[in-house]
Amino acid sequence: MSLSSAAPRLRVSMLAILPLAAFGAGAQWIWYPGDREIALGSEVQMRRIEKGEPDCVIWPEYSPWRQVTFGCGVYLEKPETVRVDVEGDAYIFTSIDDQKLAVKDGKMTLPAGGYWLSARVYNAVRAPAIRIEGEHVNTDPGWKVRWSTCDQSDAAFAPDCIAPDEKPSAFRMALERRTPVWQKSDADGIIADFGRETFGFVILKNVTGAGKVRIVYGESLEEANAGEDVDVWEALPLAAAAEHRLAVSRAFRYIRVTPLEGDVQVGGLEMEYEYLPLAYRGAFRCSDGELNRIWDVAAYTLHLTTREFFLDGIKRDRWVWSGDARQSAFMDYYLFADGDVVKRTLCLLGGKDPISSHVNTIMDYTLYWLMAVGEYYLYTGDAAFLKEIWPRVKAQTDFCRSLTDRDGFIVDRPGDWVFIDWTPEPVSKNGGACAFEQILFAEALKTSALVAQIAGDDASGAIYLRESETLRRKIVPAFWSEKDSALLSFKDGKTGELRDLTRYPNMFGLFYKYFDPATAKRIVDGVILNDGVMRITTPYMQYYELESLCSLGMQQRVTRRIKDYWGGMLALGATSFWEYYDANETGSQHYAMYGRPFGKSLCHAWGASPVYLFGRYYLGVEPTAPGFSEYEVKPNLGGLDWMEGSVPAPFGEIKVSVKDGTVRVRSSGGKGTLILPSGKRIAIPPHTTLTAPF
Amino acid sequence: MSLSSAAPRLRVSMLAILPLAAFGAGAQWIWYPGDREIALGSEVQMRRIEKGEPDCVIWPEYSPWRQVTFGCGVYLEKPETVRVDVEGDAYIFTSIDDQKLAVKDGKMTLPAGGYWLSARVYNAVRAPAIRIEGEHVNTDPGWKVRWSTCDQSDAAFAPDCIAPDEKPSAFRMALERRTPVWQKSDADGIIADFGRETFGFVILKNVTGAGKVRIVYGESLEEANAGEDVDVWEALPLAAAAEHRLAVSRAFRYIRVTPLEGDVQVGGLEMEYEYLPLAYRGAFRCSDGELNRIWDVAAYTLHLTTREFFLDGIKRDRWVWSGDARQSAFMDYYLFADGDVVKRTLCLLGGKDPISSHVNTIMDYTLYWLMAVGEYYLYTGDAAFLKEIWPRVKAQTDFCRSLTDRDGFIVDRPGDWVFIDWTPEPVSKNGGACAFEQILFAEALKTSALVAQIAGDDASGAIYLRESETLRRKIVPAFWSEKDSALLSFKDGKTGELRDLTRYPNMFGLFYKYFDPATAKRIVDGVILNDGVMRITTPYMQYYELESLCSLGMQQRVTRRIKDYWGGMLALGATSFWEYYDANETGSQHYAMYGRPFGKSLCHAWGASPVYLFGRYYLGVEPTAPGFSEYEVKPNLGGLDWMEGSVPAPFGEIKVSVKDGTVRVRSSGGKGTLILPSGKRIAIPPHTTLTAPF
Repeated sequence: MSLSSAAPRLRVSMLAILPLAAFGAGAQWIWYPGDREIALGSEVQMRRIEKGEPDCVIWPEYSPWRQVTFGCGVYLEKPETVRVDVEGDAYIFTSIDDQKLAVKDGKMTLPAGGYWLSARVYNAVRAPAIRIEGEHVNTDPGWKVRWSTCDQSDAAFAPDCIAPDEKPSAFRMALERRTPVWQKSDADGIIADFGRETFGFVILKNVTGAGKVRIVYGESLEEANAGEDVDVWEALPLAAAAEHRLAVSRAFRYIRVTPLEGDVQVGGLEMEYEYLPLAYRGAFRCSDGELNRIWDVAAYTLHLTTREFFLDGIKRDRWVWSGDARQSAFMDYYLFADGDVVKRTLCLLGGKDPISSHVNTIMDYTLYWLMAVGEYYLYTGDAAFLKEIWPRVKAQTDFCRSLTDRDGFIVDRPGDWVFIDWTPEPVSKNGGACAFEQILFAEALKTSALVAQIAGDDASGAIYLRESETLRRKIVPAFWSEKDSALLSFKDGKTGELRDLTRYPNMFGLFYKYFDPATAKRIVDGVILNDGVMRITTPYMQYYELESLCSLGMQQRVTRRIKDYWGGMLALGATSFWEYYDANETGSQHYAMYGRPFGKSLCHAWGASPVYLFGRYYLGVEPTAPGFSEYEVKPNLGGLDWMEGSVPAPFGEIKVSVKDGTVRVRSSGGKGTLILPSGKRIAIPPHTTLTAPF
Repeated sequence: MSLSSAAPRLRVSMLAILPLAAFGAGAQWIWYPGDREIALGSEVQMRRIEKGEPDCVIWPEYSPWRQVTFGCGVYLEKPETVRVDVEGDAYIFTSIDDQKLAVKDGKMTLPAGGYWLSARVYNAVRAPAIRIEGEHVNTDPGWKVRWSTCDQSDAAFAPDCIAPDEKPSAFRMALERRTPVWQKSDADGIIADFGRETFGFVILKNVTGAGKVRIVYGESLEEANAGEDVDVWEALPLAAAAEHRLAVSRAFRYIRVTPLEGDVQVGGLEMEYEYLPLAYRGAFRCSDGELNRIWDVAAYTLHLTTREFFLDGIKRDRWVWSGDARQSAFMDYYLFADGDVVKRTLCLLGGKDPISSHVNTIMDYTLYWLMAVGEYYLYTGDAAFLKEIWPRVKAQTDFCRSLTDRDGFIVDRPGDWVFIDWTPEPVSKNGGACAFEQILFAEALKTSALVAQIAGDDASGAIYLRESETLRRKIVPAFWSEKDSALLSFKDGKTGELRDLTRYPNMFGLFYKYFDPATAKRIVDGVILNDGVMRITTPYMQYYELESLCSLGMQQRVTRRIKDYWGGMLALGATSFWEYYDANETGSQHYAMYGRPFGKSLCHAWGASPVYLFGRYYLGVEPTAPGFSEYEVKPNLGGLDWMEGSVPAPFGEIKVSVKDGTVRVRSSGGKGTLILPSGKRIAIPPHTTLTAPF
């Protein structure tokens, strides 16, 4: 058996309908969309260790396609010698009798003429990738790539591209040498304090003797000194050397190195700080010094967790969780506005086929992922990415649609996790449709409809939009309790029971405008401001609770909450914000979680939400059309004397200040509208400072 | 974000419904069904080279799941220390509070009590695999393994297992040192002849100097001497050494080594023959010496191509093609009866999800794959494997069912290959349903129904069986041409045109008994014995043509065909049988194919079919119920004076001889029936030689 001339030859006929390579545009690495992120994500997440051993994610892991075929129409007046770089093994051929082209010393000669140039590239571990550089023929986004043999005509995806000198499999971050603020040797070895939470490669200096040491990563001094009781430590053999740099970068403030075997001694500690070199484009300053410090620490927390992907917490999980990542993306839009990390994160979480589990195994997290795709578009206007990610959006949407009951409500299966807010099962799962999830599902379907439309699949778009609207209309009638003035969690909920009456569906319902003003008022009084309803204690869900309050204009209340909660962490010496904080805990209780003495992450992305809240709800800047082509500025001092700051937009920062009874807005693009507390709307002229009484 | 105690805990409840590990049964390596074969197949097929560079398969490549979770219910009266071996990284924990178990120096201690023991294993390249060995707890087929988080209760697959001392990723074959029958040094370097077609690692002896050499693999002397004009050569740098063993085993009879750069010289050549150590359980001897030699060379051809998988041809493709492999499997049942290689091949070709292309991209090859699963069961009675492969059977069956037109006929899409017999497109594809494929589809659906039934999915089984029967009833009315006394290829076929009247659907229709005796006679005369209808020239399709003639009792005609065709290759000095043979070609024409001077494979599995034909249609042994629990022996001398031989069955060989007017049958199991030429049926008593006049 062999491939013969009888094999179908779609490639040739494609020449007529597909664009030729953009001549002379410069070569870029190309690969199958999302596959670099799938491989990188797998590598990054496997860096988690627990008590010296690797930990593995708890959800199904995908691999990049092992082999894909890249292709492009070529027309050359004379033969051209091009440079070929491959991550993997390549078999390159033309549509002229399937003629194989030989690559010698990284070069190959393309024949003259018009033909379809193809490269089958194989890589067992990483994303198969190729870069061809010539005078006229260069790999670039004009190329097509496919995995299947049957998606040539209508489902060939445009590949992702990165800069020519960067290998797709190697994700490089910036490095900076750092010395500790103090270090000392003692009976147990050596310990160092780097002054605040950080992330990087530990460097062991002046190593003498030989043996084995234990390295304990401490976010607190207590943790660094707790030996094997902590989660993150590693043991490694060590020989004499002037310097030994550890292979994997990790999070810590304190490092404790203890000799375990042999006569090995470590003379000193340093580190190489590893970070994404991002510009701080968003800014916020106000009359309250504590809030300014909160903003600074929140910004640093976000920076530490914004890496190859949005990580949840940098010490322990170092995993990419969709619910966490959606919040990180919103914070990013108000600080770095780095779209690339959002795209990498969405690609990784979008996964591949087949889908058999929710994103991170969590129903809400699949829905947040879908919503985050639309939000990325709103903040960036990047329609090209939506077209690229559309197959994943469709797959995830249809997966959710396959899990609906006869009312169209999404329901969980055995093995599905309904997370909401670490909500224990009687509250999150009772065998029926959960109100909170339905609100997310309606929003997710709306996003999917938008993506479908942009990707040109109007039929799917119409179905999703119709289903979104139908679902939205059903939610309040199904879950409303007149007696409680609230949405209950379940349709058969028993009025007033804790497990059925929670803040979650009500605050999301308020935020997504499910109620008329009179009903909204009843919910605010009866649930949101009712201390009898179970309080929200995680920074994760406080993001949504505070956002919900802000959207109702209650910034003054939010200011107090931020000062209490985030100010409380600062008062305890936090240099980054935590996974969880409870003002009623004391001492080492603050380090414990999950039944482990140092189980808590002290640098958790979802702790950084003030960066978002100040930009969006105090400075009040919000896009209302994709990429800030239209936007609103609706400042709210929230009880502060004055504030000033900036929010990044694609065309530059939008600067806002409110001081001494005057609001000032300056912007360099988009169709902006300033909305004053009176409700008065003023158009923001570009490149001019708009001033108005406030 | 982190995994918390709120995560669903199906594991615990599974304890009640799933079997405990078979205590003390001995530890085995376990992995996700099919994943070892997927990884191994990828590695094996990437060993193909073309002109010194890697070639890649032309179909979508799958990867093993990167991470799977193994699990088993455990009950221990006291703690037990077990040995742990992993291919990959493992995170092992129990259902008691998700307690992590530490592995130190390859050992871990299981706590006392009853719980579910789980191991998440990650491997980026090969199939994640684990082996746990203890007094009471051992990995074995009683364990469960899953990829998804939601298939715990109803779709957890039992893993495959292999012997404890063999690593799943390392497939070991037997090795045997061989010297050439002659070798000589000349102006171009050195050349050696190993006497006949072989496969193994070339050993370069007494290497002096340093530089680069080219190694040309020749199945013929002409090929070995043709330099870079041949397909299979490699160039490698070489330094002085007493011996240099090449890294990859390859096929050849002659080896030519030519210095390319430097002053390197090779003093001599040897090889290490690499083979599966299989017992020749089938046998055939008869009154015709040429047929005996044909049987011997066919058996050797099959042995050379029966390796990690059934390969098509060992020199060039070394790929696993389903149509070829199905024939190899039938030959195997009559020679080695090695079920393991059949299972490995079926697992690899069954692929994984998602399915977007036919097996090997060929419609017929998906259908043959399905049929081969049922045939494996018929010959081995291995119901356990059918249960294991059922998810793939269902996926492939439903993929085919998704490609049907409104009549239920399977049709091709752009990019699908309708191979039949290298049939050029106007004959194989004209935009409508092709008769040949429908006959295969009806048989495939019948097999799928059987597998469904054995796997306990009666609902799917009933659907497939009904669709198979409906399809079967539709085929003859749709494609029959009364004028031609034949099935035409297409419904809208123009009577008598070459592209519409072929042997293919007619001989398959005869074999699968689509016609009443009178109609069958018309087809035999009008098509099968009509030289006006395009002749079949490939050994591949001759397998089916000769089988079809045999099933009609025309063995005497088949004897002449075998002597002409296979005898013709022997007369040209063949030491293994070829991909293609045409008696009208002369000299070096015999080496050419695909427009290349040495494009033809001279050791091709489908050339070995006499091994099958003699066993099944001359000795006449055929199982009629799974695993030879029932079987028939219907000898046919096909014009020979005498014959004797054996056919392997699970309970031992069935021995048959016909000599001097007497037939003798001896068997040690099953319910056998001897069928005499008169039609008389005699029960075969076990462990006794049955003798009857013939």
